[in-house]
Amino acid sequence: MTGMTPFDATALDSLTRYRDRAGDRADLDDVLDDVLTGTLATVVDGLPWAVPMLFARDGDRILMHGSTGAGALRHVADGAPVALAVHSIDGLVLASSTFDHSAQYRSAVVRGRLSQITGEEAWSALDTITERVVPGRTAEVRPTVGKEVAATTVLTLPIIDGQWLVKVRPGGVGETESDDEVWRGVVPLALAAGTPVAAPGVQVPVPQSVRDLLAAYPAPA
Amino acid sequence: MTGMTPFDATALDSLTRYRDRAGDRADLDDVLDDVLTGTLATVVDGLPWAVPMLFARDGDRILMHGSTGAGALRHVADGAPVALAVHSIDGLVLASSTFDHSAQYRSAVVRGRLSQITGEEAWSALDTITERVVPGRTAEVRPTVGKEVAATTVLTLPIIDGQWLVKVRPGGVGETESDDEVWRGVVPLALAAGTPVAAPGVQVPVPQSVRDLLAAYPAPA
Repeated sequence: MTGMTPFDATALDSLTRYRDRAGDRADLDDVLDDVLTGTLATVVDGLPWAVPMLFARDGDRILMHGSTGAGALRHVADGAPVALAVHSIDGLVLASSTFDHSAQYRSAVVRGRLSQITGEEAWSALDTITERVVPGRTAEVRPTVGKEVAATTVLTLPIIDGQWLVKVRPGGVGETESDDEVWRGVVPLALAAGTPVAAPGVQVPVPQSVRDLLAAYPAPA
Repeated sequence: MTGMTPFDATALDSLTRYRDRAGDRADLDDVLDDVLTGTLATVVDGLPWAVPMLFARDGDRILMHGSTGAGALRHVADGAPVALAVHSIDGLVLASSTFDHSAQYRSAVVRGRLSQITGEEAWSALDTITERVVPGRTAEVRPTVGKEVAATTVLTLPIIDGQWLVKVRPGGVGETESDDEVWRGVVPLALAAGTPVAAPGVQVPVPQSVRDLLAAYPAPA
């Protein structure tokens, strides 16, 4: 299954070798706006360190957050170099040899240094993150209060030319393949939402934000 | 949305501070066996480097692979320290304040050094990876041939006590919350398979491996 090159990722080389071929910025924005979670990597005591993250692109920067009580983010909050890696596997490509199997995927990496943001800007950033994950939700709930902002570390990663990479590989089965005895094709994959489960005691109907989530994460066709 | 702590990941601290509390090995195996892709992080010239990967757990080790022609893996094939981070977001938890929103998720990190494997062992490892991604597929296609193995870098990461971490957070809306005007609850998320798309010219029916994929990645309930 070597052909499953999503993941041998020659593209990562592009980041250092061919910066001008790193894909379109519009593609980067699409991936960052569409994929819900990423992995934030940094270096701690010379060793790789990685943590899954929710995030939100906000123009030319990426917002992330965590509890001030969580030690995890102190490694990155002080301006250490990071790489935010985001990917989505969109389909499995089955060929007539294991070697030619591959995957449809999208992948992005943004490198840089995080800055901590505070005050009014942090307040607004938290709403931006919530709106990214559950669009429309901030209008349905009470506003964030000061002590909540104080309990949160808000971090921003700038999107700088030459420091990001995006790869969109639709993929498919090569037409030159011709083993008539073997099924070849694509099995689409997508993150899909299921039926919302109300908390005990909730009497109000499912709100617009949840209906929009169901529409945003349909079962793949 | 600070409560969306999937991703403030205090658990990552546990890796260094509380190794004996890093969760059950059975949970680790479940996450590694269930989540299809991960992010392999390492350090290159002092900077973080990350690439998405398919992988397969094989007992007490994790198998990965890539093209020998791809420069990406040369950074890790020589025994550099790595962290393989794997996560799945399984649901969005909507509360009555943005602060208390959270996520259901599973997350694992395995640290160590990769070794390159060759010869017969590489041959068998490639089949193991294929079977992990598309169970049953190796029996449906022609066997891998020598030049294909030669074109592939196969890497193994040992799972060593004290060098891994797993976190399984089902999550839910706190029962103490009580804003009767606001819907609270969980929107389940899952990677789901869509209708298989046969390559042009394919006349044979969808095989068992594909039917099994559809069963393995159902739309969430």
